[in-house]
Amino acid sequence: MAEYVERQVKKVDVWKLKTYVCKVKPIDIFTGKNIIVLNKTEAQEHDIYSGYRTELRHDNKSAVVIVDVSEEIVEPGEVGVFRDLATWHKLKKGDSVEIVHMDRPESIGYIKKKLDKGMLTDKEIHTIVNEIMQDKLSEIETSAWIVGAYINGLSDDEIIALAHATVESGDQLNLGKHPIVDKHCIGGVAGNRTTMVMVPIIAAAGLYIPKTSSRSITSASGTADTMEVLSNVIFSIDELRSIVLKAKGAIVWGGGMRLAPVDDKLIRVRHPLSLDPEGMLLASILGKKKSVGAENIIIDIPVGRGVKVPYVERGNELAKHFIRIGERMGMRIEALITDGAEPVGNGVGPALECIDVLEVLQGRGPDDLRHKSLLMSGKLLELSGRVEKGKGYGVAEGLVASGKAMAKFTEIIELQGGNPKVKVSDIGIGSCTHTVTSEVAGSIFHIDNKTMSKLARIAGAPRDKGAGVLVHRIRGDRVEIGDKMFTLFAESEAKLDFAIKALKDLEPIEMRKMLLGEVK
Amino acid sequence: MAEYVERQVKKVDVWKLKTYVCKVKPIDIFTGKNIIVLNKTEAQEHDIYSGYRTELRHDNKSAVVIVDVSEEIVEPGEVGVFRDLATWHKLKKGDSVEIVHMDRPESIGYIKKKLDKGMLTDKEIHTIVNEIMQDKLSEIETSAWIVGAYINGLSDDEIIALAHATVESGDQLNLGKHPIVDKHCIGGVAGNRTTMVMVPIIAAAGLYIPKTSSRSITSASGTADTMEVLSNVIFSIDELRSIVLKAKGAIVWGGGMRLAPVDDKLIRVRHPLSLDPEGMLLASILGKKKSVGAENIIIDIPVGRGVKVPYVERGNELAKHFIRIGERMGMRIEALITDGAEPVGNGVGPALECIDVLEVLQGRGPDDLRHKSLLMSGKLLELSGRVEKGKGYGVAEGLVASGKAMAKFTEIIELQGGNPKVKVSDIGIGSCTHTVTSEVAGSIFHIDNKTMSKLARIAGAPRDKGAGVLVHRIRGDRVEIGDKMFTLFAESEAKLDFAIKALKDLEPIEMRKMLLGEVK
Repeated sequence: MAEYVERQVKKVDVWKLKTYVCKVKPIDIFTGKNIIVLNKTEAQEHDIYSGYRTELRHDNKSAVVIVDVSEEIVEPGEVGVFRDLATWHKLKKGDSVEIVHMDRPESIGYIKKKLDKGMLTDKEIHTIVNEIMQDKLSEIETSAWIVGAYINGLSDDEIIALAHATVESGDQLNLGKHPIVDKHCIGGVAGNRTTMVMVPIIAAAGLYIPKTSSRSITSASGTADTMEVLSNVIFSIDELRSIVLKAKGAIVWGGGMRLAPVDDKLIRVRHPLSLDPEGMLLASILGKKKSVGAENIIIDIPVGRGVKVPYVERGNELAKHFIRIGERMGMRIEALITDGAEPVGNGVGPALECIDVLEVLQGRGPDDLRHKSLLMSGKLLELSGRVEKGKGYGVAEGLVASGKAMAKFTEIIELQGGNPKVKVSDIGIGSCTHTVTSEVAGSIFHIDNKTMSKLARIAGAPRDKGAGVLVHRIRGDRVEIGDKMFTLFAESEAKLDFAIKALKDLEPIEMRKMLLGEVK
Repeated sequence: MAEYVERQVKKVDVWKLKTYVCKVKPIDIFTGKNIIVLNKTEAQEHDIYSGYRTELRHDNKSAVVIVDVSEEIVEPGEVGVFRDLATWHKLKKGDSVEIVHMDRPESIGYIKKKLDKGMLTDKEIHTIVNEIMQDKLSEIETSAWIVGAYINGLSDDEIIALAHATVESGDQLNLGKHPIVDKHCIGGVAGNRTTMVMVPIIAAAGLYIPKTSSRSITSASGTADTMEVLSNVIFSIDELRSIVLKAKGAIVWGGGMRLAPVDDKLIRVRHPLSLDPEGMLLASILGKKKSVGAENIIIDIPVGRGVKVPYVERGNELAKHFIRIGERMGMRIEALITDGAEPVGNGVGPALECIDVLEVLQGRGPDDLRHKSLLMSGKLLELSGRVEKGKGYGVAEGLVASGKAMAKFTEIIELQGGNPKVKVSDIGIGSCTHTVTSEVAGSIFHIDNKTMSKLARIAGAPRDKGAGVLVHRIRGDRVEIGDKMFTLFAESEAKLDFAIKALKDLEPIEMRKMLLGEVK
């Protein structure tokens, strides 16, 4: 009869036994990644090749690094350290560091589970977020995580776990027991600067709105780029806290502080494929709102040709999803499905958008931007219980008419280091201009957000604050031959020329026509 | 009444208008990628940032490159060129090159289509393969393609398109009108060197078998690593052709020539996640077989604990898929489901495996390797019509017994630049050894492929040809306390120590036990 033997099997990665010591040789190149250069022969001896990740240990600190190899630039016993890493980890010439074979990241198994249609636990999702924050996952692995979430979806439980992990990946704003509200737009609409109108109105109404905004990635300007025309936007979380405790509102760049920082790492990978898995979008947005302590939130979901959500029914589904997840995270959400089929406001580009905002806050300016901002402000005042149902719009309108909103805006500008006496005539716009007129008579069928953004970008926006496009028309307008359609603004003739050249292959404004396509 | 205007809308990427000229400054670092360094300020002026891909043009040639930026290492007007790129494109100090904004790769839309569960056309799949070959896709995008194929699957039409595109991505072997056969194992079994036994038998029987093999990625040795103990394995496609036209058989490294090279690019991305989408596996294997002109092919599908295919039913499905796709590509396939639950042969590691192969070809050696190799050889002889059904095994056995297979092997070794008089005693094995004996009495329940490979690798294999593990037992053996189980071989005491240390946490041989797990 056989004997039965029981043994405890321990699982460890034996590679971590392998480690070796090198002296730092700084290399003055900025790579944007944690990269080291090892001597090729010596690295091979330790089973390390180009592209491998290893751990680099120094003074009880540890960093995950990607390996390059060279025969000439580093001798055996040396490690070439690029500038980013040397700065971040205070490494200098001759420092001794340990090169350690890295354990396989735990997350890889969980990502694989999602690819195989499994449901991840709270702990598994936290591990993925933590390992992304520690740079333990490569772009290949992070891409797989995003694609897995895109194709197989995330359950509500997974989204909530991801949102909480997103919050925990960074710092949190603590404003104490004040009523905190927020707003968010899922994006895609050119010139849509409602935030800069809403924040002063809401703060003037007595609610706290610590608004963190983004810079443009592919559009002509983000809210942070536009606000930067009037004041600083880069603040620490403590500085943001101090501004909001004084003015009740602020409009700052979210990337300047560590609020939900895992999101910035994911965007870099999501961007090339334009992948926005719904679950990740929700976790990212609501994680950021949770990080600033918001309790009542308005979500703007623009719908239409060329934006993220193509039709209203899809917008309604997304809206309900926001509300459901928000509720489980302790936040009250109202989502507004808005017309996203053309730019909002006249200007596209930082300075031109600023002018629209200042005009609206002084009771003038483009109708669409004014109406949309008042509507959203009113809904937020009602949602938070500050104003009774049905009266929000009127209260918001009153705060503009009385000058209180504009006064609040100048207070915020001053606290953020800008000039509180700024007037529309102070805003510098590009001196090189080109106006496009209609070559035909007819009615305007479509004004394209993406094309207008692209033109503004080619003209220099958002880096050239005065560059952009001023749109003279709205959808449905009747125009005659020679009527002004839009004007390009640039800060140099060369950039204006680029934009004019680009016009040849673009159709930013389409006239009404019967034949929309031909299928053969 | 409105006027209806029809206009043709042209879609072009305006970014390609942007281009600038720089002088080459060589940087002596090997990165394994096409990387350039641009002056940070100058790059920003052109809307180019760290991590962007651009096109680099020189002398009417063009390369896709990834951008790093630096303020100090390159002045405005200079471009730092890393060693790989400088070598590949013959760039030297002071050469003028153009930096051009790159068009968005066409493939991205097709990859997105696959993520959205669409079916790709032949042309779309060819475009993806071409753009991967041109380095136009980043690792993020390539990872998305692989994950999309993994989750949503590839249809038979897509697999066939991918296989043909794989063939067209490289060179093809043209042997004329000879009867060409091949074999392939989907892998995972340690020591499984059937190829080196089969090729001489098949060639001795008069069929042409131009076998291209791989090197190890994570295992202890690939067939190419093991064959390299006896001869060269790196040949051009013309050299392979000349060897096979003389000896009818060859055993060379596939990576040494441009046969189905897109596959090597995909493996780098598939490897970190261990993702083997079935459709890609089939396209890769059958693309390679088509590239050498094979008409009759045996596929070895090992099944069992710890290999890719866990149970027989799954093996049968995969086998049928191979046969179906092969048939539509004009190749006759027979797939054998084999026992993959433990190593085949005694040795694991290049030199030890060579000894097994030489012994088997001389009528001795391990039973399992001999039997499996004869069985597969016999099936291949029958499939190709060279031998009538049921007589293949006997013919293969006869070719070994008569010494004809061994004579053919020495002919191949000589043509590949090795010593045709090589004897088992000539094979250098590691002089540092450590034998593990049983601590208990009982019967052997499991010998783990992955753990044996890992031990051999820690001991130095495959780079140290003499390193590895010699397994003295097979599954089911009855052992007493103190009986020899396996011996570790290394070429240095340090590496042997590593392997011995690793043993503490590994269980390469498991004894029979009742309790296999405990779920609480």
